[in-house]
Amino acid sequence: MVTIKDVAKRANVAPSTVSRVISNSDAISQKTADKVRRIMEEMGYIPNVSARRLVTKQSNTIGLLLKSSSKEMRQNPFFTDVLMSISRVCKDNGYSTVISTSKEEAELLHEVKEMVTSNAVDGFIVLYSKEENTVLDYLRKLDCPYVIIGKKLNQSTDIFIDNDNVEAAFKLTQYLIDLGHEKIAFIAENKTYAVNIDRLTGYREACADAGLETTVFEGAAGTEDVKHIVQNMPEEITAIITSDSMMNLSVLSELYLLGRRIPEDIQTATFNDSYLNEAACPPQTVVDIFPERLGQEAASRLIKYLHHRDMLKVSKMIPTRIIERQSTKRLKERET
Amino acid sequence: MVTIKDVAKRANVAPSTVSRVISNSDAISQKTADKVRRIMEEMGYIPNVSARRLVTKQSNTIGLLLKSSSKEMRQNPFFTDVLMSISRVCKDNGYSTVISTSKEEAELLHEVKEMVTSNAVDGFIVLYSKEENTVLDYLRKLDCPYVIIGKKLNQSTDIFIDNDNVEAAFKLTQYLIDLGHEKIAFIAENKTYAVNIDRLTGYREACADAGLETTVFEGAAGTEDVKHIVQNMPEEITAIITSDSMMNLSVLSELYLLGRRIPEDIQTATFNDSYLNEAACPPQTVVDIFPERLGQEAASRLIKYLHHRDMLKVSKMIPTRIIERQSTKRLKERET
Repeated sequence: MVTIKDVAKRANVAPSTVSRVISNSDAISQKTADKVRRIMEEMGYIPNVSARRLVTKQSNTIGLLLKSSSKEMRQNPFFTDVLMSISRVCKDNGYSTVISTSKEEAELLHEVKEMVTSNAVDGFIVLYSKEENTVLDYLRKLDCPYVIIGKKLNQSTDIFIDNDNVEAAFKLTQYLIDLGHEKIAFIAENKTYAVNIDRLTGYREACADAGLETTVFEGAAGTEDVKHIVQNMPEEITAIITSDSMMNLSVLSELYLLGRRIPEDIQTATFNDSYLNEAACPPQTVVDIFPERLGQEAASRLIKYLHHRDMLKVSKMIPTRIIERQSTKRLKERET
Repeated sequence: MVTIKDVAKRANVAPSTVSRVISNSDAISQKTADKVRRIMEEMGYIPNVSARRLVTKQSNTIGLLLKSSSKEMRQNPFFTDVLMSISRVCKDNGYSTVISTSKEEAELLHEVKEMVTSNAVDGFIVLYSKEENTVLDYLRKLDCPYVIIGKKLNQSTDIFIDNDNVEAAFKLTQYLIDLGHEKIAFIAENKTYAVNIDRLTGYREACADAGLETTVFEGAAGTEDVKHIVQNMPEEITAIITSDSMMNLSVLSELYLLGRRIPEDIQTATFNDSYLNEAACPPQTVVDIFPERLGQEAASRLIKYLHHRDMLKVSKMIPTRIIERQSTKRLKERET
């Protein structure tokens, strides 16, 4: 079997130089690195992952922190798309992943401390953003690298990867207003998370711009809440926006059981495109937030930062777009 | 900071003994292991993951192989549930994971070879089962540890974690027959995978037992195929079973667009429970196959096997159960 020493001899460099090439060290000139890599390939040398980990003193593992490991959250295609996309970028760069499984913030903090202290991960991707965040406070204090998928908060100098959710909700509401809707309801999840607050803000701003009243149902926590809201939806409402497509499924299910047809009797629209919306009853108009690009940007920026700790921390906004489907259509005047 | 040497001194054993305790070696008596662990805890010693990896010459990483990384597959809650459950067991045992991202078998084989040669993983969990499997042939030849979530094939001595899908489909078909259905259609995915073949077999057996004719639509590959099948469904069909709940979503969506009500006009049932079925239009009768238990059994058996390579390879069947929801009900005689 070909060893680092064999490669070093052929390339006429020190074995430590070969190690540095393997660990992508900045201390090696591009020319030398290219030469060593060419010889490694010619000789069929494959770096041993464990050995590389030893050389670099890194775990080559990235921790992924979810806001909750509840079943509904995990089955949300948004997270699957983001996680798979992160996983792919990590694998392509020689990193593996560990996913947090805690349900409560205190438990998650404990889990993170353990990962950090045991040197199990090199950095984290945090899949949520909120004001009071003990986990981020801890990571920041230790200068442990992380990237956040979610909203940039106040004076933070962290790296944030996000959509402009205010704008996304504004566009979607405006789109419904343009179809002729004047009474649009918004059903929103938990207020703690920035994404829900922003989508609600965008909805309010679009309604205000058009001189329309708002009808908001906040803090719907589960299927039962949503059923109750839909059952008691005021008669004059002609369209419902939900802050998340999993919640939208519950809205559709309840409307189905009540015998109210979409888009004939009432119209619906939501955020985050996936197979669920494409194959819904009926297919849903939705704001595509490109979860795969969110995951890809987050992972590649974190990995780059792990190799270049002096890198400028630049946040990134991923654009959104509306996909029109059968759940919305031009509203005919009701009084004709 | 507390080191292995400190622990060894206090426990009055050699440092190598402490290392062996950390790596769960069989060579250490239970009594000694317990003592060393107690002292490690008292002294607040946390094993360094990179160091442990060096001691054990293991990557402490498990590779997860999906049958396809197509978007529909990834958004299938079955895989999310299985992956999250595997991920949890791995994390609890100090393992991280890498997920395959290849779409084609040849590409996957190449990916697996690279992971094995670079020592990036200690073993694999294979999330599909089929007759011709070049990846398994390769792993078997190298004696690389793996566990399969899927059907036990012919003479294989591998570890399989599965449901009895013939029985599950038999039960579901029998349940519909008991409700009074005499014309039940079955829409099946790709025939290459054992799970689809088995579910179809169970359906055929239940129909044969009841002296009923079968109506099978095989090899439906995507949304367009399913739409076409539903649009051309023979008039006399009173119930549709689909081999997978993602495909079932497309069936529901098309029935909705055609204005056919469930369960009044036609009834539906499928496999694998998730939020998608609970919040469907209407909520779906389904066979729960307990994906979390499949993932948990697979991961814990693989990890056990990694530590005890002489372990008897025992496969495990996870039981299934029918969950009744609004998509099915007792069929009234049509001719009354």
